[in-house]
Amino acid sequence: MEYQTILDRIHAAVKPIIGTGKVASYIPELAKVSPDQFGIAIVDLEGKVYQAGAADTPFSIQSISKLFGLTLAFHLEGDSVWSRVGREPSGSPFNSLVQLEYERGKPRNPFINAGALVVTDMLLTHHAARGGAENALIRFIRKLGNKDDIGFDRAVAQSELRTAHRNTAMANFMKSFGNLNNDVEDVIEAYCRNCAIEMNCVDLARAVTFLANRGVVPWSGEKILDEGAAKRINALMLTCGTYDAAGDFAFRVGLPAKSGVGGGIVALIPGECGICVWSPALETSGNSYAGSIALEMLTSISGRSIF
Amino acid sequence: MEYQTILDRIHAAVKPIIGTGKVASYIPELAKVSPDQFGIAIVDLEGKVYQAGAADTPFSIQSISKLFGLTLAFHLEGDSVWSRVGREPSGSPFNSLVQLEYERGKPRNPFINAGALVVTDMLLTHHAARGGAENALIRFIRKLGNKDDIGFDRAVAQSELRTAHRNTAMANFMKSFGNLNNDVEDVIEAYCRNCAIEMNCVDLARAVTFLANRGVVPWSGEKILDEGAAKRINALMLTCGTYDAAGDFAFRVGLPAKSGVGGGIVALIPGECGICVWSPALETSGNSYAGSIALEMLTSISGRSIF
Amino acid sequence: MEYQTILDRIHAAVKPIIGTGKVASYIPELAKVSPDQFGIAIVDLEGKVYQAGAADTPFSIQSISKLFGLTLAFHLEGDSVWSRVGREPSGSPFNSLVQLEYERGKPRNPFINAGALVVTDMLLTHHAARGGAENALIRFIRKLGNKDDIGFDRAVAQSELRTAHRNTAMANFMKSFGNLNNDVEDVIEAYCRNCAIEMNCVDLARAVTFLANRGVVPWSGEKILDEGAAKRINALMLTCGTYDAAGDFAFRVGLPAKSGVGGGIVALIPGECGICVWSPALETSGNSYAGSIALEMLTSISGRSIF
Amino acid sequence: MEYQTILDRIHAAVKPIIGTGKVASYIPELAKVSPDQFGIAIVDLEGKVYQAGAADTPFSIQSISKLFGLTLAFHLEGDSVWSRVGREPSGSPFNSLVQLEYERGKPRNPFINAGALVVTDMLLTHHAARGGAENALIRFIRKLGNKDDIGFDRAVAQSELRTAHRNTAMANFMKSFGNLNNDVEDVIEAYCRNCAIEMNCVDLARAVTFLANRGVVPWSGEKILDEGAAKRINALMLTCGTYDAAGDFAFRVGLPAKSGVGGGIVALIPGECGICVWSPALETSGNSYAGSIALEMLTSISGRSIF
Repeated sequence: MEYQTILDRIHAAVKPIIGTGKVASYIPELAKVSPDQFGIAIVDLEGKVYQAGAADTPFSIQSISKLFGLTLAFHLEGDSVWSRVGREPSGSPFNSLVQLEYERGKPRNPFINAGALVVTDMLLTHHAARGGAENALIRFIRKLGNKDDIGFDRAVAQSELRTAHRNTAMANFMKSFGNLNNDVEDVIEAYCRNCAIEMNCVDLARAVTFLANRGVVPWSGEKILDEGAAKRINALMLTCGTYDAAGDFAFRVGLPAKSGVGGGIVALIPGECGICVWSPALETSGNSYAGSIALEMLTSISGRSIF
Repeated sequence: MEYQTILDRIHAAVKPIIGTGKVASYIPELAKVSPDQFGIAIVDLEGKVYQAGAADTPFSIQSISKLFGLTLAFHLEGDSVWSRVGREPSGSPFNSLVQLEYERGKPRNPFINAGALVVTDMLLTHHAARGGAENALIRFIRKLGNKDDIGFDRAVAQSELRTAHRNTAMANFMKSFGNLNNDVEDVIEAYCRNCAIEMNCVDLARAVTFLANRGVVPWSGEKILDEGAAKRINALMLTCGTYDAAGDFAFRVGLPAKSGVGGGIVALIPGECGICVWSPALETSGNSYAGSIALEMLTSISGRSIF
Repeated sequence: MEYQTILDRIHAAVKPIIGTGKVASYIPELAKVSPDQFGIAIVDLEGKVYQAGAADTPFSIQSISKLFGLTLAFHLEGDSVWSRVGREPSGSPFNSLVQLEYERGKPRNPFINAGALVVTDMLLTHHAARGGAENALIRFIRKLGNKDDIGFDRAVAQSELRTAHRNTAMANFMKSFGNLNNDVEDVIEAYCRNCAIEMNCVDLARAVTFLANRGVVPWSGEKILDEGAAKRINALMLTCGTYDAAGDFAFRVGLPAKSGVGGGIVALIPGECGICVWSPALETSGNSYAGSIALEMLTSISGRSIF
Repeated sequence: MEYQTILDRIHAAVKPIIGTGKVASYIPELAKVSPDQFGIAIVDLEGKVYQAGAADTPFSIQSISKLFGLTLAFHLEGDSVWSRVGREPSGSPFNSLVQLEYERGKPRNPFINAGALVVTDMLLTHHAARGGAENALIRFIRKLGNKDDIGFDRAVAQSELRTAHRNTAMANFMKSFGNLNNDVEDVIEAYCRNCAIEMNCVDLARAVTFLANRGVVPWSGEKILDEGAAKRINALMLTCGTYDAAGDFAFRVGLPAKSGVGGGIVALIPGECGICVWSPALETSGNSYAGSIALEMLTSISGRSIF
């Protein structure tokens, strides 16, 4: 079946459940987003775009930025990344400090908050000498997404900063274990700015196609990661990409994916396409409710899980 | 490259590291096994067998039996399995009771000991009325492996029983939460017997081919699970199949796999083949050291990870 | 003020709250006890008895037996007791396995279930060679309480045995760490029998007077423990004697005390008297609700806390 | 025996072990203190001073300030203190965040760091409207210690501030649960200043005499706390005053006490005297090694434990 047909079917099927769940409320600015929205897009390796619903509406990518942050750090630093952050599922909520204490400040993986803070710290250190730390991740995403006007929402970033007590706790905690080199304030600020990046479904689906293409950006031919590294990022998405529901997500959807509390989920089919779905109302683990179901339908209808 | 060529190359390459690690010692009978052994086998969907090293030497399948136990329970009971056991990675050692306490007696997944005890309990209940509980799992494996003389090692089973204090603790703990219906002794005995099943690499590679074939046993055409269910078991293997190193294993190997402390690891490439590698010396997480590296080489050389 | 006047006042004052709380229900036989009962007794160092309410009604002493068990073990084994059980408050519910796992099978103190199981194991080992293990603790309590017909309730012991899954879990768990020498079944059976011992308030108040008298039984002059050891048991009662509410209990009552889920609480004023209060309805931590308040009144009215 | 004779004996007896243990090193400024020092002082309720060793040498009181902070908060706010901080032993290291997460930001007691941060927050709020928050605790201690020139060491306070990542983590963590009202920076700064207060053994022994005197400062007759409240603070010291060794300390010493990583320990005998011992080298729980042993000798020789 054609991708477009599949997306249209999914869009029709999920309509009754759009809005089921809860919009993230711990960041006041995000709580203002209307839950009754849904968009989905696929970009294949020839760059062809398929879309349904509000696939052009920008939203806050939130934790999806952790995927791009890790990719950039891995691109810049290679395997030394893993000396400071693990690659195991955490089995705990995304903002838990318990495991961090038992494992002496080394976060379980780069997709929980603690891990992303360490990755942010690495990027700050890397760019400090070279200048331009501030927008390094955004410039990288613009390249991946082939779009120059990707930016972040200042009000959301400010809102996150004002409520960043838990993340600040984590960053200080890791600093007490010696696993954070920059000032806590700088790391938190960069982290909040990255979470507040705005993109739409089409942008995001396009921005992850390199992971479906052995690490090479399809339209430019630029090698972001070598083939092994790209596959490894995909494996990490599958095991750790959707908070404490990663096992359930792999079980139901069977595709590498990374979600954000803004309601977006990026996914990909190796060798075929990048995918992004968005709907702001979340299930209890923090993943988009309608978005998860849409992806489950996508693999059911297309028969295209990786398993 | 031909599978046989790949296996021969792997066999040659791993020779220097065979024996690195530690043979499981907490079960006295297992501690007697010589660490200097290695075997690997692939069985493709036409039933063609490729093998290298001691692929015909029988060994104790240990936790690999958890995969067959789950498959049988899922086959018999369908999704009701998930009301009593989760499908998330545990983020904790395979025999930890901590998470079990916080989650009130519901094990995280069927591949940690607590989860396998619950699955064993389900099978006991199922067969109680119908007779033949004792050998139900072995009969099922004989069918999957197309071999009539698969059995268990009585000395190993006895040895496990005598040192089963931790598993007995778990079973009693779950019973205190109402998540175990049969007598603890019966569950523990059946569990130990299943762990003591003996098979060789070729048998095991053949026995998992149905998971690479959408749930259908290739040579008999028997549908064990429907396509969706088979894919879900594969997803579970990827996220939870190799103890607390599942993330790392997915990262490095990128194939659904289930390991046992006897040193065996089964894996599969969807649409292509079943795989089994065996070498008794283990790394610290309880997976075969040489076996893990052999599988990592297999995906590197063949370019065949699922990502 | 005279003890008798104080007890009469307390009895009058607590009347409206007798029955507030919940009778322990996890042991079916205990759940049958009527909550509307209350008794209190004081025995001074001359043996004079003061009492109010149902101070002659026998009840199940439950965890108060842990105090006698520890005393006997300390009497027989001296400081070697502390190599197998700690003396720190646990900060966790009385039947938690979490801390036991982190601390590798050594219970925090002898007044939580795990610790009492270890003490029971010590006593079994001690008496095994000498015969009479079965009734050793009862004989010891008869001597302390100066009463020959103290025994245990067979129905309660059986009821506890049938629901002992959690304790059996703990015992097996400790055995897996090498901190239990006898068979789990034997330890659990002895433990349940000890919990099912029946005594009344007067008996219990009398049985603890030696702890108020520097380790010497007042009427017989028998030295059970030397002065330092008696004070140490008292300290342990204060810090660990009332489940996870020991801090609150010390804060409000300020006397060494040990409670049981049968609704009894023994306490003592060093140099003055033994005390026992009983009322079956419990607050959420497992201590008698009316009993705790009665003891709080006792120290308020008499001005006799140890602080 | 006379207090002076007892102190002289203790001083002679501990000489060989002075310096055993480790000076606190996580605060660089404290690490400079020489371990070979020891002082002890008793102040009775008539104000008579007994002392031995370096009892006039000032040292950093560190966590002993938590006792004064709690007393002041209890004095100012009464029982409402307990709505924001518990009074149970923690069963965990003094700077653990694990329990704080499970108990949703309410610290176990006011003598662990998290609890003292909450108390500091209360005091800041109380004094904010009234001015003089900065030196409120020091003014209070001057009154208790009857000495005008008690102050804090600016270098130590700065040193603590620079290494306060773990405390900052805790404060942010509690703020994320809504259990901190002031700015984290302000709370941490006040907390570090309080820890850096300098006093000697005589000052400290005198400053706690009110707790041995039913809440009344002996020489001025000022009632700091009513009798019940004073006894309750004493109970809290006994159950929670010496980090994760409170049970052991009660067991061995049997007196209400509060220790600090500067090597000081204050204690008291109700109705008799205030006590302070100091020796900078610590055992593994963070209490002065020689100081603990000196107090154990004090109760052994004098026969004066509260039990």
